[in-house]
Amino acid sequence: MIKVSVMYPNSEGCKFDMSYYLDKHMPMVREKLGAACKNTQVEQGLAGGEPGAPATYVAMGHLYFDSVEAFQGAFGPHAPDILADIPNYTDTQPVIQISEVKS
Amino acid sequence: MIKVSVMYPNSEGCKFDMSYYLDKHMPMVREKLGAACKNTQVEQGLAGGEPGAPATYVAMGHLYFDSVEAFQGAFGPHAPDILADIPNYTDTQPVIQISEVKS
Repeated sequence: MIKVSVMYPNSEGCKFDMSYYLDKHMPMVREKLGAACKNTQVEQGLAGGEPGAPATYVAMGHLYFDSVEAFQGAFGPHAPDILADIPNYTDTQPVIQISEVKS
Repeated sequence: MIKVSVMYPNSEGCKFDMSYYLDKHMPMVREKLGAACKNTQVEQGLAGGEPGAPATYVAMGHLYFDSVEAFQGAFGPHAPDILADIPNYTDTQPVIQISEVKS
């Protein structure tokens, strides 16, 4: 299983519309990716590790696939539509990471 | 539910012993945190979002708790022992984020 993490960097005054992300963006993403996407998770950053430190990421979205190839096959055709929706909920530029789920 | 993400930044030549992390560190952490820790996840970074880009994090570990207070109460007394084990598997300095699980 692989996990695609889309991490939105936090900064003073950055915009992130969690309601839009949860109610519009993620359902659209799941519909476009179809059965290849096995699961999704969404988190909102609360804090960093040190007392009083801000969260590194204002929000994170995670998508699970059986393999990198399954992700690429499902995401590629819809990448333009999915990426075009980002400005509707945030003014941040997400950092993307593909990871192998170990446990 | 809250999620504590411990993210180990990737860099050329950095050390991360995934076997030690999976077989020694995380079991020790789970044992010390006890029932307050509802779940754990471990991932190994494979790639970044752009073709050929490296993963931002060489590895990530996630711990789930009912609340920030539950995390602090369980982690605080064992923080010295848990943090002292980090050099046994990595020479990186982890970035920690506390997030609220939204979906």
